Formats: sequence, C-alpha cells, structure tokens
Amino acid sequence: MCRWAAYIGSPIFLEDVISLPGHSLVRQSHGATRCHTPVNADGFGMAWYGERAEPGLYRDIMPAWSDCNLKSLTATLKSHLFLAHVRASTGTATSRNNCHPFAVGKWSFMHNGQFGGYDGYRRHAEALIADEYYPHRRGATDSEVLFLMALAEGLDQDPAGAMARATAKFEILARQRGIAPYVRLTAAFSDGHRLYALRYASDEQAPTLYHRWSDRRGGRAVVSEPLEQDETDWLEVPPQSFCIFEGDRVSQQPFLPDAARAAA
Amino acid sequence: MCRWAAYIGSPIFLEDVISLPGHSLVRQSHGATRCHTPVNADGFGMAWYGERAEPGLYRDIMPAWSDCNLKSLTATLKSHLFLAHVRASTGTATSRNNCHPFAVGKWSFMHNGQFGGYDGYRRHAEALIADEYYPHRRGATDSEVLFLMALAEGLDQDPAGAMARATAKFEILARQRGIAPYVRLTAAFSDGHRLYALRYASDEQAPTLYHRWSDRRGGRAVVSEPLEQDETDWLEVPPQSFCIFEGDRVSQQPFLPDAARAAA
Amino acid sequence: MCRWAAYIGSPIFLEDVISLPGHSLVRQSHGATRCHTPVNADGFGMAWYGERAEPGLYRDIMPAWSDCNLKSLTATLKSHLFLAHVRASTGTATSRNNCHPFAVGKWSFMHNGQFGGYDGYRRHAEALIADEYYPHRRGATDSEVLFLMALAEGLDQDPAGAMARATAKFEILARQRGIAPYVRLTAAFSDGHRLYALRYASDEQAPTLYHRWSDRRGGRAVVSEPLEQDETDWLEVPPQSFCIFEGDRVSQQPFLPDAARAAA
Amino acid sequence: MCRWAAYIGSPIFLEDVISLPGHSLVRQSHGATRCHTPVNADGFGMAWYGERAEPGLYRDIMPAWSDCNLKSLTATLKSHLFLAHVRASTGTATSRNNCHPFAVGKWSFMHNGQFGGYDGYRRHAEALIADEYYPHRRGATDSEVLFLMALAEGLDQDPAGAMARATAKFEILARQRGIAPYVRLTAAFSDGHRLYALRYASDEQAPTLYHRWSDRRGGRAVVSEPLEQDETDWLEVPPQSFCIFEGDRVSQQPFLPDAARAAA
Repeated sequence: MCRWAAYIGSPIFLEDVISLPGHSLVRQSHGATRCHTPVNADGFGMAWYGERAEPGLYRDIMPAWSDCNLKSLTATLKSHLFLAHVRASTGTATSRNNCHPFAVGKWSFMHNGQFGGYDGYRRHAEALIADEYYPHRRGATDSEVLFLMALAEGLDQDPAGAMARATAKFEILARQRGIAPYVRLTAAFSDGHRLYALRYASDEQAPTLYHRWSDRRGGRAVVSEPLEQDETDWLEVPPQSFCIFEGDRVSQQPFLPDAARAAA
Repeated sequence: MCRWAAYIGSPIFLEDVISLPGHSLVRQSHGATRCHTPVNADGFGMAWYGERAEPGLYRDIMPAWSDCNLKSLTATLKSHLFLAHVRASTGTATSRNNCHPFAVGKWSFMHNGQFGGYDGYRRHAEALIADEYYPHRRGATDSEVLFLMALAEGLDQDPAGAMARATAKFEILARQRGIAPYVRLTAAFSDGHRLYALRYASDEQAPTLYHRWSDRRGGRAVVSEPLEQDETDWLEVPPQSFCIFEGDRVSQQPFLPDAARAAA
Repeated sequence: MCRWAAYIGSPIFLEDVISLPGHSLVRQSHGATRCHTPVNADGFGMAWYGERAEPGLYRDIMPAWSDCNLKSLTATLKSHLFLAHVRASTGTATSRNNCHPFAVGKWSFMHNGQFGGYDGYRRHAEALIADEYYPHRRGATDSEVLFLMALAEGLDQDPAGAMARATAKFEILARQRGIAPYVRLTAAFSDGHRLYALRYASDEQAPTLYHRWSDRRGGRAVVSEPLEQDETDWLEVPPQSFCIFEGDRVSQQPFLPDAARAAA
Repeated sequence: MCRWAAYIGSPIFLEDVISLPGHSLVRQSHGATRCHTPVNADGFGMAWYGERAEPGLYRDIMPAWSDCNLKSLTATLKSHLFLAHVRASTGTATSRNNCHPFAVGKWSFMHNGQFGGYDGYRRHAEALIADEYYPHRRGATDSEVLFLMALAEGLDQDPAGAMARATAKFEILARQRGIAPYVRLTAAFSDGHRLYALRYASDEQAPTLYHRWSDRRGGRAVVSEPLEQDETDWLEVPPQSFCIFEGDRVSQQPFLPDAARAAA
C-alpha cells in the first residue's frame, strides 16, 4: 500500500499539503493510520503543474521525511494543481522509476492499491501496453502499466471510460492468472486542468479516499487520509466511484470497470 | 535512537544475524519494540572482519529492508566478527558519512543513544577531536566525534578507560552546554579480535543491551533487542557496564565515566 | 559503451584488478582509451564467487571512482572468480537494476556493446523472455534481456550455443526493427566455475577484448582494455570469437550466431 | 575544480542556461574545456529565487547529465535569478551536503577553485566559523567554510568586504598550514536581488570567469565557460576582480583580500 495527496485550487506552496498539516503526507510516510502498512518509506514523488503543459516531476528513493530536496522544493514551489505520493513497495525495487507519480506528456498518475499476484502475470500485463506507449515503460510496477494502458484506451478523450477499460483488462488478467485480491485501486491523475480520482476494489476492501474544500487555501485536497485528524468535515468517497474535480466543483459518478468489460 | 547487532564466534554468513532471525536487525529497522522509535530507516551500515586488519565497510542511505546490495552481501559474506546498525536520525542528515559503523584503521564503532542538545555544542565537541584523527571526521554525528575522541584517549591500549574518558569529556560538555538527557549511550566496537560493548546513561534510561551464546552458530550475538522474541535466555547487560567478548568468553565490569572524569 | 574486467585464478583482493592497476577499471571509468566514450560513469557493479553457488552482487549508481563502499569492498573481499563493470548508458536510466553484472542463480553476466535502435523494439525483445525468467527482468536494458534469453536457450548445458542462439534471435529482431549497427557485443559471464567471454559484431566494429595471465596474481584477467598501458603481452581476442577460461587454460572457438540462426 | 553558471534577468526556464545551450553546464559536466578536469561528475546543485526570500535548493550526487529530476526541474521552473554548479571533488566525499550551492537564509553561494592542502588544516578553518553559523556547517568542504565565514564577516552589509575578509583569513591559514597554491577562487553568490561574482588567486592561475548579456533571454549569464563555443562576445573578468550584477547593469571593482587582511 501507499499514501497519496493531491490538490486543486488557488496556487499554494506544496508544503501546505505535503508537509505542514498535522497529518501531512510526510507524516503519513512514517505513521499512516488508515492502511495496513504504517510505514510508507520506499521512495516518494510529486508532480506539479505550472507554466508548461507538462508537469514538473520529482521522485526519489529516500523516505519522504528525510529528503532535504523535498523539503526545499515544497517550501518554494507554488502550484494550483499537484499530486504527491509516498510509497510502500509490495515487491518491486525501490528505484526512481518505480516511484509515483508517473508522467507522460501532460498527464500525471499515481496509485495506491494492489493487484494480487501481479508478479506472476507481469509479462502478460506488459504485453498489453500499446507500442506507442512502450518507450514510457521505465519501471516494473503494476501501477505504471495501468497508466500506460489507460493512455492507450483514450485518457485524453474519455478519462473515466479509459481508466475503466484499463482496469477491466487488468482485472481479467488478475482473475485468470493472479491471486486474490484481484484489484484494489485508489488513484489520482490529471491533465493539468482537471483532477481525477477513483476508488475501486473487486472485493470489499477498497483503499480509502477523502476530499475537503479549504477556504483558507482556496482549494481542495484529495487524499488517502485526512490531513488533520481533528477535522470532521472530510468527505469520504464511496467504493466504486469516479470523481472529477475542476475549480471548486466536484462531480462524482459510478466507476464500473465490470460494465466496461462486459461491453468490450 | 537506532538499533544494532554484533557477532563474535565461528564464521557465519552475516544474514544469520542481520536478516534471517525472526526479529532480525532488518526486521527491527521497521518494527523495533524496545525503543521510542519503531522505525529505524535513516540508513544502515555494517563492518566485518576478514583477512585484512581493516574491516570491510558497507553503508548506505536507504532503509535496510529495501537495499538489494545489503541482501546479497549478507547472504554471501562470512565473518567471525561483525557489527551492523540501522539508523534513526536524531537530526543530522541521512548521508553515508553519518551512518554507523565508523571505521578508522582496524577499529570499528557503532552507537545507539542520545547526547541531549548536541546540535548546540557540536562546534565545541568537534574542537576536542585530536589533530591526528581530524581527517577521519567525515560526517556530522555526535557518535563519530565520540569514536574519534576515544581513539585519541588510547583505545588501542585501554579500550574501557579510553571510552570512559571520552564519554566523560562529552558528558561535561553536555552538562555545560546541552540539555537533559545529557548522555544515553549503548555502543559496540572492535579491533578485529575482541568485541566490546557498553551500556550507560547519565539518567535512568540507558538504551537496552543483550547478548546470547548460540550453540548452533558457535558464536555470540550482542544486540539492542533479542533476535528471536521467544528466546528467553538472552542476558540483559545492566546500565553502567562495560563488556569484553573474546572467543566464547564474556567479562563484564563497571563503566564509570564519572570516575574517569574525577581522575582526569 | 561500457568497460569491464573479469578475473579467474588464485583468490586475490578484488582491488588488484578493479582499482589498483595503472589503467584499472576504475581508471577507465573516467578515462577509457579504446572506445568512443571515455567517461563510463553511469553506475557500476561487480559479481564475485565465494563459498556459495550464487555470486555476491554489488551495484550502484554513482561513478565507480567516487564510491566509498566499492573502495572498501574491493580492498577486503577476495575471490577466485569475479566480474566487474563500469557503465556508460546508451539511453536507459541510471538505476541499480540497469547496472551490470546481472545475476540469476549461479550465473552472472555483463555486457559492453550496442543493439542499434533497441529502444524501438524493446517491447518485442522482452516478449522473447521465457515465462520462467520473466520475474528476473528488473531493469530496462537490452543486456539483461540477452542474458535472460540465453538462460532459456540452455546456458547451463551449452553456454556457447545458448549465447549464440540468443544473439541470433536478438540480431533478427534488430535487423527487422532496429537501425544499424545491428549488434555489437562483448560479454563475459560465469557459472562460478568457468569464465566465458565473447566478442562479436554484425559489422566491422566489435568492441575490444583482451586477456593476460599474470604469474604474480596466479590468474588471468579478461578485460575491455589492458590493465597496464605498458604491458605488451595482452592477447587480443579476434572478433566473432568465444572463449572459455578454466583454471589457467584458455580455449577459443568461433562465435557464429548466424550459423545458430540458420540451424534454428 | 568544478564548473558553474548563474543568471540574472527576465525569468527564464532554468534549462535555458543549464542544459539547452551547446556548451551548457550539463555539457560541461562531462566535457569542460577550460579547466584541468574535463569531467565534473561528483554531484551537482542549483539554487533559484522565486516568491520566497529563501532560494529553492536542489542538489544530488549523480552526474548532472543523468539525473532525471534535474531534467524535469530545469524544464519547468522559471526564475529571474539562479545559480547552478557541477562538481569535481578535490577529495571530500560525494554527498549532498558537499554539493554546491550552499544556502543560509536568503543567501546562496557556490565556488570553483582550490585551497591548497586544505585537508591538513580543515580543523583550523572550521574553528573560524562563528557560533551563530555553525549549525549550518553540514558537509566537509572548504567552500562551505568560506561561505559561513563570509556570513559572519557581514555579507549582508558589505558583500565585497565580507568576502575579502573571509578569503584573507583563509589565505593566512593556507599560507601557515597548507601547501601551494594557496588560494584559487572563482565564486558566485546572491541574496535574491543582486548577483555577485569574484575571480581571485594568490598565484597566476585564477579559474576562468565570463559573463554576457543576452537580448533573447533578457538577462545575463555569468559562467565558468561560455555557454556557446562560437559566441565571441563573452566578457572575461580579469583576476582579482569583484563583480556586482543588478538588473542589466554590471559594476566591477578590484578584489583585494590582501588589503583587507592588512587592514584587519
């Protein structure tokens, strides 16, 4: 499992979400409370949007709490839209290319969850990556494969549908060749304009997902765990949901990779 | 705080202490049970003696649990005498030069503990390092200073006395310029023949120290925490003690830096 | 391009080949003279055989000249058979999993050369890795793919034939989908008993390969570049050759992946 | 020796100086032409000013040419004032804390040069750091000591004088305890408003220093080596000079640490 936090709204210093809150993402890197692994110290990363279409990307292999570059970057960079992630490896190596977020062109993507027995069918999952996106396959994680599959499924035109089709393909593979849990998946991704998030599991244990508008920040945080433990107004996204965040608006719809699969 | 484990006896693969036991040092790097910080993931290191007088030294900044080099080295290297350490920084940076063990010539040294308010008197502590040993000052930790001070105090001729005199000097400085707790200190060090360990605190909270002879290994482990949680025959070293391990023998004596200080 | 050095003979400290000679491998990492890229600083690695069937493996991303762990390991480890490599990336990331040597079970492998346009057909090359060896696919290099393909082709039973068949398959792919030069390849590999090396190119520019017996060491070095620039008795292996080194003996035979391909 | 580049002017993407020019700083990291060490691959760093008084700081231990984070950061960050450095160690370890620039509060500082025999008098140099700045002493370089000494000498009130006094103190120490060449020093530093640079040596071999206004960028680059090898209008700063860059203006004055020393 991993933990992540994203933000959309008025530009803020990244530290305002990543390290300053009482239960910030950095805090969660050594003391997460709503998942099985309190320690998420197998690298970290962040993607932030600014003047260019492509996000900036900074990822490294140290625990987030001890990286002096992360501290300086989050204290000096401002962004209206960013994603940040702390990793707990479920098997693959601690290397920069296995750290989230992943970025291709204007898109960035990060993931928390589990594809049961992925190591046994990695070869078959990778074979589903389209030629066009294969040069972007740099690491060994299931998460990067899902992202590259979704890009080929049309993330540009239909974010929810593309991600559902990619998830369905993965789930079929997991059912054929993997072990339970087939798919547990909470993800966030962005094209630099909208922020998308989804929560899904093929069993009863979808990883947690919350969001909350902050008047002080003038923006919304979308997170694995609430950033302050005494704030009671975080909204929990129910399982099998897909959210679109744009400006201060939220729209939420069912996320049904099964339906997509049936239609395939 | 940190955790460490050392071994003296018949040559064994290093993994037999560092990673294979149920509560091995690697396990303690993310789940220590007898100290305030369960996570000790700010780097690690090991020193082992072989054919040369100088120990081999391998230190790196990743958590011990995720380092593939550590896994391979401990699985293939055999030694009759080695020290290993997982670090939880009390402030200084996560860098190789701040990782234990430290080594100068034939000597290696590692430490778990705290010198209260050290950051406020680091300058004065470093000024106590003898010219001869200053080129070996590579990092910023209090532990490395203590080691270099002890070398100048005559570690070669009188290990217990040299370490007591160095500790006393440090304690004087801590009382003058630091904050309580002045000194908490559990350390192990070796010249390649004997293994030394000490447990001391200027208050009531000396870090833990245990040892146990293993017939299976044909050697003795000296550790911060017992390597198996169901083994009941680990011997706890009382505070203010200095131990000498040679072959299968143990000798234990009071460790009294105050006395050394008074005599100085 | 990269540079490498291997050794078989009486046990020696690894530094005796890797860092002490006047034109040692570490020296070649910043001043290689017989290849296009004098700087080979995109990581390094070494595999050495000792008491276990599996080799020890140490790889890291820093330039070889500045890694303090490498310095200590090579100064204290002795081995009768080892491989060492300094890397100049031809495109893939500087990460441990892209550093040579690669190791699977008792086998280790390292490579210097070029598969023209590999990035464009990586997907198809990876698809040729057998299921059995896919979990060992950790990085993104062509070299690791060649090694895993050779394992599936029967490296255990027929090292020369297996490597020829794997090379032939790679060359077919390179001709179909890559760009010239199709294949340039100098490699060394070992099962812990024999040391194998080959030199091959589909054009006129096979990377260099030399070997020399040293009475002082009681062993033979097999290298990209002679370890001393004033030693005149290094034997150059001609292109399209496969060498077997065992004890003090050398046997050399043609390496003809084309023939293997024709027979396939 | 090292290489560095700085910029002041209209905000530009950092890559416009650091990696895009034909003889960019990244290019100089493996092929510098105006110094003794063509390879400057022992880490790198950059400091850039934005919305906060303190600069952002990113430093790492890989060669600049292979760091994917550096590539992304320089492609997405814009700044009106920044410093960047590629390092060739003259002895101290490759670690983040030894990489330039160094930053304290609003000040950033980087250096290229040599204090002959520094290792022999490091202890005495460090003893000259004022108590107030000692907590900022994180690495082991002479450069960081010079910066911290200059801060205590009044960098805020009198940048040229403070740096001259610090250099003079260092030069006295070098003459007393070091070996020739006593001091060779080209440095750049900034408070976020002005950019300062100096070129000085106690012998005839001061490291090179150039600057050039670019209409295209709307700003001035100040560098160790011209960023394009065919641009003929780079201005070479003569030895023993101190430059102040503010907006598009340059003011240049003698840099005479000897005079400062005499007056001390």
